[in-house]
Amino acid sequence: MRVMGLDPGLRALGWGIVDVSGSRLSHVANGVCRTEQGALGARLARLFEELSEVFVRFAPDAAAVEQTFVNRDGAATLKLGQARGIAMLVPSRAGIVVGEYAPNAVKKAVVGVGHADKRQVDHMVRMQLPGVEIAGPDAADALAIAICHAHVSQTLARLAGIRS
Amino acid sequence: MRVMGLDPGLRALGWGIVDVSGSRLSHVANGVCRTEQGALGARLARLFEELSEVFVRFAPDAAAVEQTFVNRDGAATLKLGQARGIAMLVPSRAGIVVGEYAPNAVKKAVVGVGHADKRQVDHMVRMQLPGVEIAGPDAADALAIAICHAHVSQTLARLAGIRS
Repeated sequence: MRVMGLDPGLRALGWGIVDVSGSRLSHVANGVCRTEQGALGARLARLFEELSEVFVRFAPDAAAVEQTFVNRDGAATLKLGQARGIAMLVPSRAGIVVGEYAPNAVKKAVVGVGHADKRQVDHMVRMQLPGVEIAGPDAADALAIAICHAHVSQTLARLAGIRS
Repeated sequence: MRVMGLDPGLRALGWGIVDVSGSRLSHVANGVCRTEQGALGARLARLFEELSEVFVRFAPDAAAVEQTFVNRDGAATLKLGQARGIAMLVPSRAGIVVGEYAPNAVKKAVVGVGHADKRQVDHMVRMQLPGVEIAGPDAADALAIAICHAHVSQTLARLAGIRS
């Protein structure tokens, strides 16, 4: 199974792809779609086109996104929501049900504890994907989300008595 | 010039299309894309496919969306942001710069005052587009946004000394 993790943002949308075979994980690719400037619509269109290209190129079977931390800054939440809509759209168009995980669930799956800091997450992503070169913090988060989804999918498959 | 107005929402995304020739407005079409149930990603994908179909069918030259009212309900803002991202994406993919108008600006353009209520807006939309059949409140709002954008575009064209 090939899993795509997504860490949405308007300025930087991180993506990371891993292959899962039984309990073995291997790194496929990771990167960041960046839109620093321009009209909002043009930036969303750019995220969509770039992410669609990545999706077609690596053809994941599954996808997951971090549950967004919603705060009182409504304008920031709206901006993030717009980018998140694009991130969810791309795999959903192919019929994939996109998993959603709270940040603490991702940390727990990758590091073993829910209150791990960014450095620990980054370290454990590198441990689980030996030799990986990571395009930046957003790509590291996206890989962590992909690893989390891989773990959850395996567990569900085991519970269902299916060997994956 | 053909203008598409958009009133984004996850449950109901209103759209309305008008033709503008000089100071004359005429109705082309209006409707609502509805996604009542299902996984978030699947709903966003459905909005995208339906709105893309409308866009291709009526081929507008311009588009506008209402500026979203951001409140303290972060979860609702995030949901709306995701739908709004899809609404902006569709015309933006075709290179259209999507106009954004505050609700009061739309009311002022359509009714003449910024504090008009929904019924007044609905009434004035019907007055300006004689014989129009409106698919619902979200479609009426979308038509009002299209009319607002048509007025603004005309004014800008006059200021630039261009006859539209």
